Amino acid sequence: MNAHNPRIEPPRLGEPYLLTPGPLTTSYAVKEAMLVDWGSWDGDFRAMTREMRDRLIALLGDGSDAFDCVPMQGSGTFSVEAMLASFIPKDGKALVLANGAYGLRAAQTLDYLGRDYQLLDKGDYLPPRGDEVAQILATDPAISHVVAIHCETSSGILNPVEEISEAVYAAGRKLLVDSMSAFGAIPLEASKIRYEAMVSSANKCIEGVPGFGFILARNSELEAAKGNSHSLSLDVHAQWAHMNKTGQWRFTPPTHVVAAFLEALRAHEAEGGVTGRGRRYIRNRDVMVSGMRELGFETLLDNRWLSPIIVTFFCPADPNFVFSRFYELMKDKGFIIYPGKLTMVDSFRVGCIGQMDEHVMRQVVVAARDSLREMDVAAATPPEAALQERAKLAS
Amino acid sequence: MNAHNPRIEPPRLGEPYLLTPGPLTTSYAVKEAMLVDWGSWDGDFRAMTREMRDRLIALLGDGSDAFDCVPMQGSGTFSVEAMLASFIPKDGKALVLANGAYGLRAAQTLDYLGRDYQLLDKGDYLPPRGDEVAQILATDPAISHVVAIHCETSSGILNPVEEISEAVYAAGRKLLVDSMSAFGAIPLEASKIRYEAMVSSANKCIEGVPGFGFILARNSELEAAKGNSHSLSLDVHAQWAHMNKTGQWRFTPPTHVVAAFLEALRAHEAEGGVTGRGRRYIRNRDVMVSGMRELGFETLLDNRWLSPIIVTFFCPADPNFVFSRFYELMKDKGFIIYPGKLTMVDSFRVGCIGQMDEHVMRQVVVAARDSLREMDVAAATPPEAALQERAKLAS
Repeated sequence: MNAHNPRIEPPRLGEPYLLTPGPLTTSYAVKEAMLVDWGSWDGDFRAMTREMRDRLIALLGDGSDAFDCVPMQGSGTFSVEAMLASFIPKDGKALVLANGAYGLRAAQTLDYLGRDYQLLDKGDYLPPRGDEVAQILATDPAISHVVAIHCETSSGILNPVEEISEAVYAAGRKLLVDSMSAFGAIPLEASKIRYEAMVSSANKCIEGVPGFGFILARNSELEAAKGNSHSLSLDVHAQWAHMNKTGQWRFTPPTHVVAAFLEALRAHEAEGGVTGRGRRYIRNRDVMVSGMRELGFETLLDNRWLSPIIVTFFCPADPNFVFSRFYELMKDKGFIIYPGKLTMVDSFRVGCIGQMDEHVMRQVVVAARDSLREMDVAAATPPEAALQERAKLAS
Repeated sequence: MNAHNPRIEPPRLGEPYLLTPGPLTTSYAVKEAMLVDWGSWDGDFRAMTREMRDRLIALLGDGSDAFDCVPMQGSGTFSVEAMLASFIPKDGKALVLANGAYGLRAAQTLDYLGRDYQLLDKGDYLPPRGDEVAQILATDPAISHVVAIHCETSSGILNPVEEISEAVYAAGRKLLVDSMSAFGAIPLEASKIRYEAMVSSANKCIEGVPGFGFILARNSELEAAKGNSHSLSLDVHAQWAHMNKTGQWRFTPPTHVVAAFLEALRAHEAEGGVTGRGRRYIRNRDVMVSGMRELGFETLLDNRWLSPIIVTFFCPADPNFVFSRFYELMKDKGFIIYPGKLTMVDSFRVGCIGQMDEHVMRQVVVAARDSLREMDVAAATPPEAALQERAKLAS
């Protein structure tokens, strides 16, 4: 039990901690909220949907009254596709800022949609910067929208959305943000950073279980989105209009997942909202990263770019280190880690989000140390090539 | 406790029974399976996905080896849209057989997709017949696919898919079936009725909780579906190819809902599979309908067309009968019923599916009787207009 935060308790049924970007370890109370069957048409469930939407809008802080919340069934990617299709008009053009899998997936989505776009691909992790965005927008007046990834979990980098937003609106264009893995722990206050719409999902920093995502968008954009969508199911305007008229979801909602999410939103508020949640995750990251560095592991990113969401470490150079074995040894000790996504060098990732605190993160470091010993890995130092790769990123 | 089937127990947390077409009342064991957090990338969860797919394919019986199973995040409508977009080629043309909201929704989906189609709209409930289908196919050689609704829950009618299938394949065309609310309780054996693909969802006759659907399709159709989809998220071919290569879902699955569904599939097998499940639902329907008829209520449909899924009753002619009040009185007694969808006359619906047996259905009839008394409704007899409406349907 954690003296600083008595709400954090280990998984009651003994399953491993999920040190991943989601699905993540949730509280027992969140899961317990799924032990009831709700009628999706019934007034009780409509009230739950209303409360959930209100709570999500409130997380935007000052300026949130210009926004509305549209939950969308499916994984987070479904919500991203819904946002892109609904807010970028058929004759619009997007600038997609990519430095990992999720930026590239946004571009791939636009391929499916047949929407015009330009891709700024910064490779595995280099951040797209405000001045680069300004330059591209200056040279291509056809670009109407910019699509940015808040935290790119491929590397764990926290992209500089503030300076990107400034560049976008200085050029009179519109910003759409994929804040999937960041929203709820990293501020995205409507009064401090401008954007038209953002998406996240139930199973990220709010600490619900997976099954739906949500779009927070300006009312003006929602009104203008009518007729844009390529898909009945993913039509944000239609979902919004129906929900505001009837209080119901257009199509069957994942009722149990919604009940769990509402419980998660209440716990999020009790922890101090975005600030409180972010503080715990930052502490998780700091304790875990410093412990791993003491073991000889090196992070891909300098401290400046490290998100409190997930951290990429280089695999050790020692030939005795085999990731699949490391994964199983860590799992045996109660921790599920995540494979890396870098194309140039071998890596793995450790998540900082979910029902975990610094005490758990210290156990993660102990488990990593013991796993290295069991594999006869003498030092966790990465290969020279990894350090050369990293040198590309000026801090 | 039911002596015939000791697995059926009342909702443990005292919530009302859901007499709806889903989300429905599930067993406590199904909901309990959601008390664990699973890593979607982990081998344990991949094994769960594999078992789920294998069990679903097996429900098709003889001939199932020509089929594969592709689960799809979102509500059932997402799976229907995914099926239509993936299997009807961009230059194909569909004949949509509609007698209620779900048939019309399939047509609306094709509008979004920009796919050509002809609509046979039979109105509120009249069944599309094999000879009508044959006639349309004979006059329009451009039609490549026919889309049929197995059980149209708008009215509760069980459509004659066997004779429709015969007409479709006699004319050398292909059949796609929306078996959302029927699959798992009404046979759709691959060796007895021909079709290319069908969809259903987790929260129907298998008695799981809502959060995803699934497509059962011939391998040949899955292979041919590459490049057809309008949507990244809803691309059945891409989901299938990725899942068969990696064992994982392409995008985050609703892990808890999958765990619940697997538990539900095991219970479905223990009850005797499609036959056993169907037998209980038929008994539910028969007991409930005969009790309601004794109270003076009349069903929209003759017995021949009554599905064991959901039954439409006419609202009584008595001016003291107000549906919203009846709904609340029934809910107070522990039963959530469902509003009607008929355009011509007032109606309501009572579901027969979910964790309920004939003993529960007898309580439903008692609750209806008591609710009528509390409303001072002397007789449940419908207005003359309703009976005239019904006379349109030859038995």
